[in-house]
Amino acid sequence: MEQIKVTEFSLCPKFEKAFTILGKKWNGLILDVLLEGGPQRFVELANNVPEVSDRVLVERLRELEREGIVTKESNLYRLTEKGTDLEKSLISVKNWSEKWITPEECS
Amino acid sequence: MEQIKVTEFSLCPKFEKAFTILGKKWNGLILDVLLEGGPQRFVELANNVPEVSDRVLVERLRELEREGIVTKESNLYRLTEKGTDLEKSLISVKNWSEKWITPEECS
Repeated sequence: MEQIKVTEFSLCPKFEKAFTILGKKWNGLILDVLLEGGPQRFVELANNVPEVSDRVLVERLRELEREGIVTKESNLYRLTEKGTDLEKSLISVKNWSEKWITPEECS
Repeated sequence: MEQIKVTEFSLCPKFEKAFTILGKKWNGLILDVLLEGGPQRFVELANNVPEVSDRVLVERLRELEREGIVTKESNLYRLTEKGTDLEKSLISVKNWSEKWITPEECS
């Protein structure tokens, strides 16, 4: 078999970075709530992800801000363009996991 | 704002599980090589992901086998239906990261 050219990709495994952000506990849920619910104050966001403690939610939002995925303006958290652009990927992985990950595998 | 219904989703954060598998170092690259190159012997696979040591490659392949994403038959590693079904998600996240993750952010 001919060797596949993976050099460019493997030199910079950008998508591992992306999956690492998205795979972090609660991030998918937080992004989902922002995508579906639009800009929200902290208290609304906290209501929409009631399983997450305020402390952890603050932490995650700060990380997502640092990644340029979420921004906070006039006390409203909203997705940036980079964040909004994640919708297709989130839906795609969600569909895959709904189809293939069994409830027993959920932790 | 009306409260968003996230109960079903949040009860079983399946897609965190999916992202965790995909975000693990080298898994994206291994899947990419299997998607593009088709079924391969270990030595071919190792040639196509030369940055990964044999020890780590064996480890990752075993994990992917346990997850039902890769299967080994007559010494050929191939993607299962569950694995092949990941293509859309991989492409989508790859496109996103190509657009949004800067080279400086790659580790």
